[in-house]
Amino acid sequence: LLKNIQLTFCKKGDPMTTHQQLFITMTLSAWEGYVKRTTALFDGLSDEQLAHDIAPGRNSGIYLLGHLTAVHDAIPVFLGTGARAYSHLDAAFVSNPDKAGFAIPSVGDLRKYWKEVNARISQQVAKIPADEWFNRHTAVPEADFAKEPHRNKLNIIINRTGHISYHLGQLMLLANKNG
Amino acid sequence: LLKNIQLTFCKKGDPMTTHQQLFITMTLSAWEGYVKRTTALFDGLSDEQLAHDIAPGRNSGIYLLGHLTAVHDAIPVFLGTGARAYSHLDAAFVSNPDKAGFAIPSVGDLRKYWKEVNARISQQVAKIPADEWFNRHTAVPEADFAKEPHRNKLNIIINRTGHISYHLGQLMLLANKNG
Repeated sequence: LLKNIQLTFCKKGDPMTTHQQLFITMTLSAWEGYVKRTTALFDGLSDEQLAHDIAPGRNSGIYLLGHLTAVHDAIPVFLGTGARAYSHLDAAFVSNPDKAGFAIPSVGDLRKYWKEVNARISQQVAKIPADEWFNRHTAVPEADFAKEPHRNKLNIIINRTGHISYHLGQLMLLANKNG
Repeated sequence: LLKNIQLTFCKKGDPMTTHQQLFITMTLSAWEGYVKRTTALFDGLSDEQLAHDIAPGRNSGIYLLGHLTAVHDAIPVFLGTGARAYSHLDAAFVSNPDKAGFAIPSVGDLRKYWKEVNARISQQVAKIPADEWFNRHTAVPEADFAKEPHRNKLNIIINRTGHISYHLGQLMLLANKNG
């Protein structure tokens, strides 16, 4: 990502475009970095480790895998780039707490969904023109956006970066190393 | 913060300034939001709760309070706005793991340092001109910055926002509610 954007930075002279592009790069790099770290952690945890709770009586690794997958699955809707693929995960992983008795997919399937949804987001965000990032996201009414210009599509990525890093800190507790 | 920036957004016509200001608002709002949530959590935890480990054999709440305080204390150095006040915390809370036997301040003092350092950062960032946020942070050599323009002061805030949300997710495990 950074490499692509640097080309734009060096070739174009328009300062507004440059700053926009740079800010988009910074935001997307932070996002992709956390997705990468979290995916590496999931890949390094066995199904048995993922079944453990992050702390006694708290969410399991499987719940957080399903939760992050479902939350990321909704990102394209906010960006206006596509529909949801896994909304059936919401009951078990978003609207209700862990251990509430909902049927859930196998861990193997959840691992696949996680990679698929993030790959899809990566492909879609790469095609969003710079200007478009600063338009309102689909859940903000136009009248509100006029007064709150920060509620744009890029802000969705900023918010979801905070969300994934919050849960990454918890998921690290399932690994053998401290962090 | 948002209110101040909106005035700028509405009054000034220059699109570059407007966009720069908007990026800064988005970044600082996310940052301030996490600092506020984390401070509210610390305030709501008793000294006894803070002394607990976030999970068996992991970092204690006191360690994470000291760790976040020390890391935030270094932010003004990167921004070029001031010197460190609590570098003596680094041995116990940054360079070494929890329970390594280093002397630490009282929890009451750590709570004070936490509020003081974040208040200081808030005051300092409010005075940084828009252009200055896109200049290199003090740990990046000029030659590197020419090739990597994302390594600017605003990126320090983006990175530290990821850091605090990561540890907030862990600190939430000390509270009675799930999350």
